[in-house]
Amino acid sequence: MLGLILRRQSERKYSNKPVEPDRLERIIEAGRMAPSACNAQPWKFVVATDAEVIAGLAKAASAKLLGMNGFVGQANVIVVIVREKPNITSRVGGVVKSKDYSSFDVGIAVNSMILQAAAEGIGSCIIGWFDEKEVKRILGIPSSRRVDLMITLGYPEGERRNKKRKPGDVTVSYNRY
Amino acid sequence: MLGLILRRQSERKYSNKPVEPDRLERIIEAGRMAPSACNAQPWKFVVATDAEVIAGLAKAASAKLLGMNGFVGQANVIVVIVREKPNITSRVGGVVKSKDYSSFDVGIAVNSMILQAAAEGIGSCIIGWFDEKEVKRILGIPSSRRVDLMITLGYPEGERRNKKRKPGDVTVSYNRY
Repeated sequence: MLGLILRRQSERKYSNKPVEPDRLERIIEAGRMAPSACNAQPWKFVVATDAEVIAGLAKAASAKLLGMNGFVGQANVIVVIVREKPNITSRVGGVVKSKDYSSFDVGIAVNSMILQAAAEGIGSCIIGWFDEKEVKRILGIPSSRRVDLMITLGYPEGERRNKKRKPGDVTVSYNRY
Repeated sequence: MLGLILRRQSERKYSNKPVEPDRLERIIEAGRMAPSACNAQPWKFVVATDAEVIAGLAKAASAKLLGMNGFVGQANVIVVIVREKPNITSRVGGVVKSKDYSSFDVGIAVNSMILQAAAEGIGSCIIGWFDEKEVKRILGIPSSRRVDLMITLGYPEGERRNKKRKPGDVTVSYNRY
């Protein structure tokens, strides 16, 4: 498992090879089966496989001035994560503890999907910067919903990079902050 | 990978068998290497292994009236996830897009840890309901920080349950919401 976590990286270059339907299904299933606060599952996954839809989403994500997300159109599939209203238990709990549990839930589901993708040999990249209104328009998502993140999927063509992380003695401590 | 995702469940009963240090290290490492928006890694993991600290955290998490979290004291280890300030790129991005990317990041890291735990044969449960002030006091966490979640770890003694999830046709759609 840790090997897979270390192998996974944000892939920003994809080949033309399509993601096989059974692989895609398992990736989505990994998200669907993810745990969430009070089992609320506050998400809907809109899976873009249509070339025109993908092109639209890529345009909504591109930020030329910032030099970001130019690669999104290369993706073979884009999974758009829509936040749905959590169940009452999670909502009330969140109000009492002033925590938005459903954001953690979305992160959890997204991580399960990118790890399943890595296990399938499929590259992925989490996209958090896009024109949300435009994404909603393209996919017919109700304006009341938030679109938190998207995941690009495709066979990777980029090089393996070394992970850069803060050292363990900054990130981890024992029994005391 | 999907097999592991399906096997993982929220474990609320643990044996006395200690979690071996090398397994615990790999679980923490899984969180440390998790991806995050702009690689901000907005987290610190405080790992409680001391029996007295664990007892204190268990008391802070117990909600007798709600019949919740009575099992936390059985945990052999508790990982407390403290949210740290994200880097400037993630912060500015979050303001522009009115998204708190660091909540997604926390969910991602937590999921990597519980999946690594499952791979090690260690049971886990994500705890989101606790007296945050008290947890901070016990661990000496600065009052400016948020403590989002905790993870209990230990060898599981509970029974395997079937996962209950919304059906796929509710959670998933293609090319259109």
